[in-house]
Amino acid sequence: MLEQLKEEVYVANLELPKHGLVKFTWGNASGIDRERGLFVIKPSGVDYDKLKPSDMVVVDLDGNVVEGDLRPSSDTATHAVLYKHFPEIGGIVHTHSTWATIWAQAGLDVPCMGTTHADTFYGTIPCARYLTKEEIDRGYEHETGMVIVETFKERGIDPMAVPAVLLHGHAPFTWGKDVMSAVVNSVVLEEVCMMNLYTRQLNSFAKELPQEILDKHYLRKHGKDAYYGQN
Amino acid sequence: MLEQLKEEVYVANLELPKHGLVKFTWGNASGIDRERGLFVIKPSGVDYDKLKPSDMVVVDLDGNVVEGDLRPSSDTATHAVLYKHFPEIGGIVHTHSTWATIWAQAGLDVPCMGTTHADTFYGTIPCARYLTKEEIDRGYEHETGMVIVETFKERGIDPMAVPAVLLHGHAPFTWGKDVMSAVVNSVVLEEVCMMNLYTRQLNSFAKELPQEILDKHYLRKHGKDAYYGQN
Amino acid sequence: MLEQLKEEVYVANLELPKHGLVKFTWGNASGIDRERGLFVIKPSGVDYDKLKPSDMVVVDLDGNVVEGDLRPSSDTATHAVLYKHFPEIGGIVHTHSTWATIWAQAGLDVPCMGTTHADTFYGTIPCARYLTKEEIDRGYEHETGMVIVETFKERGIDPMAVPAVLLHGHAPFTWGKDVMSAVVNSVVLEEVCMMNLYTRQLNSFAKELPQEILDKHYLRKHGKDAYYGQN
Amino acid sequence: MLEQLKEEVYVANLELPKHGLVKFTWGNASGIDRERGLFVIKPSGVDYDKLKPSDMVVVDLDGNVVEGDLRPSSDTATHAVLYKHFPEIGGIVHTHSTWATIWAQAGLDVPCMGTTHADTFYGTIPCARYLTKEEIDRGYEHETGMVIVETFKERGIDPMAVPAVLLHGHAPFTWGKDVMSAVVNSVVLEEVCMMNLYTRQLNSFAKELPQEILDKHYLRKHGKDAYYGQN
Repeated sequence: MLEQLKEEVYVANLELPKHGLVKFTWGNASGIDRERGLFVIKPSGVDYDKLKPSDMVVVDLDGNVVEGDLRPSSDTATHAVLYKHFPEIGGIVHTHSTWATIWAQAGLDVPCMGTTHADTFYGTIPCARYLTKEEIDRGYEHETGMVIVETFKERGIDPMAVPAVLLHGHAPFTWGKDVMSAVVNSVVLEEVCMMNLYTRQLNSFAKELPQEILDKHYLRKHGKDAYYGQN
Repeated sequence: MLEQLKEEVYVANLELPKHGLVKFTWGNASGIDRERGLFVIKPSGVDYDKLKPSDMVVVDLDGNVVEGDLRPSSDTATHAVLYKHFPEIGGIVHTHSTWATIWAQAGLDVPCMGTTHADTFYGTIPCARYLTKEEIDRGYEHETGMVIVETFKERGIDPMAVPAVLLHGHAPFTWGKDVMSAVVNSVVLEEVCMMNLYTRQLNSFAKELPQEILDKHYLRKHGKDAYYGQN
Repeated sequence: MLEQLKEEVYVANLELPKHGLVKFTWGNASGIDRERGLFVIKPSGVDYDKLKPSDMVVVDLDGNVVEGDLRPSSDTATHAVLYKHFPEIGGIVHTHSTWATIWAQAGLDVPCMGTTHADTFYGTIPCARYLTKEEIDRGYEHETGMVIVETFKERGIDPMAVPAVLLHGHAPFTWGKDVMSAVVNSVVLEEVCMMNLYTRQLNSFAKELPQEILDKHYLRKHGKDAYYGQN
Repeated sequence: MLEQLKEEVYVANLELPKHGLVKFTWGNASGIDRERGLFVIKPSGVDYDKLKPSDMVVVDLDGNVVEGDLRPSSDTATHAVLYKHFPEIGGIVHTHSTWATIWAQAGLDVPCMGTTHADTFYGTIPCARYLTKEEIDRGYEHETGMVIVETFKERGIDPMAVPAVLLHGHAPFTWGKDVMSAVVNSVVLEEVCMMNLYTRQLNSFAKELPQEILDKHYLRKHGKDAYYGQN
């Protein structure tokens, strides 16, 4: 079942090491079929160069395996929560990509300091808080999803306008309208995290991008008045 | 029309990801035929690995498409302004290359701190100011070109001696006698931006290159008394 | 003799330059056959691209060559000491990998600041002290091993839970249940050293990972309750 | 003439871009035939991928071309001075490699902070002063060599024990017993410059390597009591 989605998710997973976002098996990508309410995710701990499309695991929105011989990613419960609470997203990526993880370890939001950021993320990318001991005991991966949802809700951020989050002490999650968009957003996040760290080092007084330039760049690529690209 | 120039501009565009200056479609190169007053530019948002020479778009100096099935780069109006006001330049490159963009985000001019810089750029590379809200509303890409022209005029910089600029909060533009020179200047700019950032970190008292060494290095490669290379 | 182990150690040695951990001949990997009390190690100063499985040297736990035409790694005596005093380890890797060496030169322990670290190392990675002049004169490589053993003993660290050490002014050693695990631990150490350095630069108040998250991540991958991967 | 040396110098020149030390044509390697008092050097400004062994230029110790159709490297006079004053060296390499150039731009000596440095360089690598205006006018490339010679003489450094120098505001030169050793020394210098910069950033109190460890590491690889490698 879901053969085309499996192929898509398989290809997206392979993109992660190609873009230098993943070492060994430290990452996973998933994509959802909203009509059936099922998503497809990478199996846990399988080497990227041994992965086949048929290894992809089909899971429902409570994280139960529906089809597949292998155990799904250990982060499956986090994906399930995000699909449940962010109904517009079609794909999710989790990596420990170097520069985004550095910001996550530093426990800092990523401010918008340039148009590279503004072309993809409409404002600050939030860093979610540590999980408490109680949350960890209750179910680490599920509660990780809940903390992400809480972060976007409390701050009033639209997850489609800012399709990324950092988890304090851990690493990033990104998402998008489909799994390949989530991969692209991971690449952009990584680049932005690197550039913003050095921007601050070079000039500790460097300012965030003025709102009007953020608007201009985000809206020339997104929404009904977009004029970037061929569509 | 302009088949040879299209081929040249196509090849130059492909050089950008090869040199690590461009991710996805974040860059564009153009070249001009001064006799006809037409320039050739990459289409907007097309993947580099799907690009063909015949995809290149021919545009006039007001930014109107003269030939081509695809929409030209969203930055076309900026290229047009630069060709109009800098009559000696034959090619232009725009990227979001990492280190140059870091300096652009920091809003700082790039001082000449070594001979690698002096071999290509005859002095400080300026960082142009943010556009105002009025300029953005009037026409973002056109006004971006105007701010670059203003920067060189106000500071009395010869654009052929310093063939690069940073845009505050955005990224670099470079140019040259032809499109491939503009690519080379992008590579040099990127390297210089990386080295100068670390030079300042290593020694916050590091000085700019003495004028006589700047003169020597620039002039042994440029102008009538040059003796570098085989010509 | 020990043909399979030689092949394994040969392959592990080749992984070192592939992962960017080793330039020229600056590294060595070994694996032990605990039943026979013999280990297999790379020959000294031989280029990786000329190495053959049959070049591997068989050595006993006092560092005496038992089989092999070539001289074993100049660090053989260090490997021997570690195998003697850490009876659970099956493989050892020594490199001058860039970021781990930077921490070694800085003379600092590597604190656990994120889950990438916690997935592999159960807490702080220690930096061992400089050798004294007396120790160097007595036998540099043997005493290097002794200082590592002393470090783990004095601090009460289990070498299987924290399978890595830095040597002040020198570089890292890692180990594991077999030689390939030691290679993986070298890769993780390198990544963690890079990320933690930048984390501190980005936020000098960045905290170590809370103990409960360290526990959770380490124990979901290690020990009897692990649920990561397919086993 | 000198066909074997030309081949050797050709191969060494190609190693420079392979090791990431050179962009475009920013580097040159030469090797000397001491019996004939002639050296072979790369032609000026020729692309590495178009270079042929027969393009190498034969030059005497006053920098006069003895054989070759192409103009020799613009830095030929510097090489000639070094061959004249450092009679033990057999090969020279000049690059603008990133990290060594950063130290050169910072105008700082490279202290020995670890065994990676000590394995190749027996102590601090000096940074030579800027040339004066008079020296530049008298003959920039020749005087560059003279400033290097002055630096080693005044500080009493043996050029065979410390086979590298930085030129303030410019870039490094390295040398060795032959041209390939000079290439290896360039790679080590680059790595050491990167690691030492970050070591200082990580711990501004980081100390230089104790003399007894410097002695141990240098002398286990160099001189009559060396025991590293297979010879």
